[in-house]
Amino acid sequence: MTVAPLVTRLTAEAYPKVKKNPDYKVPDSADVEYFRSFLSEDEMIQSKISEELINFNQDWRKEYRGQSNLVLLPNSTEKVSKILKYCNDNKLAVVPQGGNTCLVGASVPVFDEIVLSLSNMNKVRDFDPVSGTFKCDAGVIMRDAHQFLNEHDHIFPLDLPSRNKCQVGGVVSTNAGGLNLLRYGSLHGNVLGLEVVLPNGQIVSSINSLRKNNTGYDLKQLFIGAEGTIGVITGVSILAAAKPKALNAVFIGIDNFDTAQELFVKAKGELSEILSAFEFMDRGSIEHTIEYLKGYEFPLTKQHEFYLLVETSGSNHEHDYQKLSSYLSSALKSNLATEGAIAKDRAEYDRIWTWRKSVPAACNSGIAQYQFDVSLPLKDLYTVPEAVIKRLKESNLVSNAPEPIIDCVSFGHVGDGNIHLCIAKTEYARSIEDTLERFVYEYLASKEGSISAEHGIGFHKKGCLHYSRSDIEISLMKDIKRHYDPNSILNPYKYI
Amino acid sequence: MTVAPLVTRLTAEAYPKVKKNPDYKVPDSADVEYFRSFLSEDEMIQSKISEELINFNQDWRKEYRGQSNLVLLPNSTEKVSKILKYCNDNKLAVVPQGGNTCLVGASVPVFDEIVLSLSNMNKVRDFDPVSGTFKCDAGVIMRDAHQFLNEHDHIFPLDLPSRNKCQVGGVVSTNAGGLNLLRYGSLHGNVLGLEVVLPNGQIVSSINSLRKNNTGYDLKQLFIGAEGTIGVITGVSILAAAKPKALNAVFIGIDNFDTAQELFVKAKGELSEILSAFEFMDRGSIEHTIEYLKGYEFPLTKQHEFYLLVETSGSNHEHDYQKLSSYLSSALKSNLATEGAIAKDRAEYDRIWTWRKSVPAACNSGIAQYQFDVSLPLKDLYTVPEAVIKRLKESNLVSNAPEPIIDCVSFGHVGDGNIHLCIAKTEYARSIEDTLERFVYEYLASKEGSISAEHGIGFHKKGCLHYSRSDIEISLMKDIKRHYDPNSILNPYKYI
Repeated sequence: MTVAPLVTRLTAEAYPKVKKNPDYKVPDSADVEYFRSFLSEDEMIQSKISEELINFNQDWRKEYRGQSNLVLLPNSTEKVSKILKYCNDNKLAVVPQGGNTCLVGASVPVFDEIVLSLSNMNKVRDFDPVSGTFKCDAGVIMRDAHQFLNEHDHIFPLDLPSRNKCQVGGVVSTNAGGLNLLRYGSLHGNVLGLEVVLPNGQIVSSINSLRKNNTGYDLKQLFIGAEGTIGVITGVSILAAAKPKALNAVFIGIDNFDTAQELFVKAKGELSEILSAFEFMDRGSIEHTIEYLKGYEFPLTKQHEFYLLVETSGSNHEHDYQKLSSYLSSALKSNLATEGAIAKDRAEYDRIWTWRKSVPAACNSGIAQYQFDVSLPLKDLYTVPEAVIKRLKESNLVSNAPEPIIDCVSFGHVGDGNIHLCIAKTEYARSIEDTLERFVYEYLASKEGSISAEHGIGFHKKGCLHYSRSDIEISLMKDIKRHYDPNSILNPYKYI
Repeated sequence: MTVAPLVTRLTAEAYPKVKKNPDYKVPDSADVEYFRSFLSEDEMIQSKISEELINFNQDWRKEYRGQSNLVLLPNSTEKVSKILKYCNDNKLAVVPQGGNTCLVGASVPVFDEIVLSLSNMNKVRDFDPVSGTFKCDAGVIMRDAHQFLNEHDHIFPLDLPSRNKCQVGGVVSTNAGGLNLLRYGSLHGNVLGLEVVLPNGQIVSSINSLRKNNTGYDLKQLFIGAEGTIGVITGVSILAAAKPKALNAVFIGIDNFDTAQELFVKAKGELSEILSAFEFMDRGSIEHTIEYLKGYEFPLTKQHEFYLLVETSGSNHEHDYQKLSSYLSSALKSNLATEGAIAKDRAEYDRIWTWRKSVPAACNSGIAQYQFDVSLPLKDLYTVPEAVIKRLKESNLVSNAPEPIIDCVSFGHVGDGNIHLCIAKTEYARSIEDTLERFVYEYLASKEGSISAEHGIGFHKKGCLHYSRSDIEISLMKDIKRHYDPNSILNPYKYI
């Protein structure tokens, strides 16, 4: 992926090989009239002037831009149903859209697809403080869900940098991972029920609040991570966790990635139930961050090959601090850790996290970037950047070559086997991106890794599924798409 | 469900309304010859004498008995594939079977279906002690998985009373819950990958070990809890948890179920990350257990309306004990708990658990039983037995009526909203079972509960899905069945 140019090119122009499907009807005035018959002023935006709809057409990273003239923002499930039924009957293509913070271009039109925004469905439906079951409309913004639950001594079971904009339904549709996965697990475990509208307008209401329900195929699971290609999520029932009372963190410098793995095993053993994050950053990514945060106090006194952030969240600050402190001491004593600093108070805790949270922005700033969000078996995690750097050197793409790669740094979630790779170049070129992608994806395929750990497929990775999925798997997925969306009206040109 | 009669009647005789589907081919000598061409002596049992195959035909609770003459026990995925392809081409019906500990009759034939046992696929495939990823054949017995992982300082993320017999593949196929769900979550979150053979013989190998993998529809989820109706699971990749170093437990007596809920909220707040079980038993269920365990030391001095078992598992015994102890003290001080006893050592911990674990057997012993494994929103959990007892009284089914109900007791997992209801009668009658089922299921439907929390559907609850699922949901499930198993060869007469 690339740093945003000032004006995003139309996707149709940037990817001329992707052709518009002539089978789709172009929305006309009769269609608009129909939608107007049951949608109010603030449930519909129609404009011939594309700037007015720019926020719905252009993605978060400003990489993709569609040309839709029609955005529908229904405020009820029934209206979503009416819209989809009509679009299905008339072969009008539709892009479901949540907060539009997708990182792979899944949530914006490619051509003139109708945008179906869930933003007007933004009510909390129910909360049970005893079981922790939280039910809401799909369009509730994650920050608001967090805030509501915080007032009830609970937390939403995942958090993302895009929390101020992303919506609960979108988060579920993309099976987002985030910073709390190590502790609270994936959405496939936490989502208790969904309300979904199928392309034919059928409302499937499985939005129960049961933790155990073995009555048939767990169909809701198909919609978690389906990126709106087989149905539109309109309601979510999810298990909220009790709010942890104590947060502690330590920042550690180490010499090599093998040590990171040893320390992870040690953390699982010694910190066990309070371990809530185990993040790593390599030397290069921290060097960028030091530059980026100019003068902001660094937790350690020396430079190291790798850095770890280990967080605990629990119910007794003193107990947890004692555990984390003795974890750090013995890591230093056994020479696994070279240097370490434990947060003594909330300010220090926040400072440590600021270093971790600033890494992505720091690595993204200033120079053209190619980024990869990949996962692989933990033992092979840091072999990706090593292998990539080696291949880049071999192919003369580093340093003095005509189009030099100037840097390759990485960071990620050790606990989740998830690494984010940033390759910086002086200039962006689609051809270099293609070459790099092939490098990285071929390597991942050889290690049984995934080309998309948490960002999804969308438009960006549609053609690359075969690196992580077998022909049989891809063919079974296509079957599912045809099964639920035979007219292929939902989120076309993407995913599968 | 009923207490086992000494000789189990043939299902075909006990349920004359269930007719054998004449479209299925009856296995003949040519079929046997084909299977013999690639299966060795110990991979095939064929017998005209039904007693030889009794263990494969009869279920764990001795409620159902099929009449299969042919049991195949292939030792490889490729052989499973060959078998299914042949059966699909020839319309031979097949019942996949793990440890055959199913409680709803899902794992035994109804008529003469071929039994496909996974018992000979019993190898651990891989374990990564850093990430905790455990891969094994479907036929590995749960006890062996626990033992293997225990030797590597990890635990299998669920445990069941049937652990000595049930198999990992069967556990996943039935989406078993068990005693650790509150802490480790459901299989939908813990299973990382599956190897599945489809009815047409296609091997779908998605047995990766990635914690994050957002590359398309998460199809493996469909097979978790599908009870072998759309494919046969041959391999499982699952996330093992680090073995907890400290276990603590407390046994509490309380006056009413509202208090149980208050104490659960308190436990989530104060014990938070170390809370690993929150079980309840009502007065009646403990009275049966006191009788059953004759003279075994009871943890409390008085009788109460309800009993709770609260367990913690963590990494520091002293810390955890201190937390649990102060939880109990404040519960007593605030008059939420009437009496309580904390386990001072491992022997006392085991004794407390013996009381909980003996409850099902105690409630099952001696008298004809009707049992229900149901779930519902936590606030309504104990209203089920209350409502049932009320309706039983109204309909004159209690005490002095012609066919008296002599008792109705219950116990379950507060944390999971799961209650097990045992209704005792002097004599078993199918008509009473039907009446009771209607009572219970109608009540559950009115409260948006589930007629099967963890035991599944199988043969027993096939006709009752509509109490917990809408027509649309059932119709979508039937679509999935037809989609994957168009010849309907897998596990017929059951599920959906």
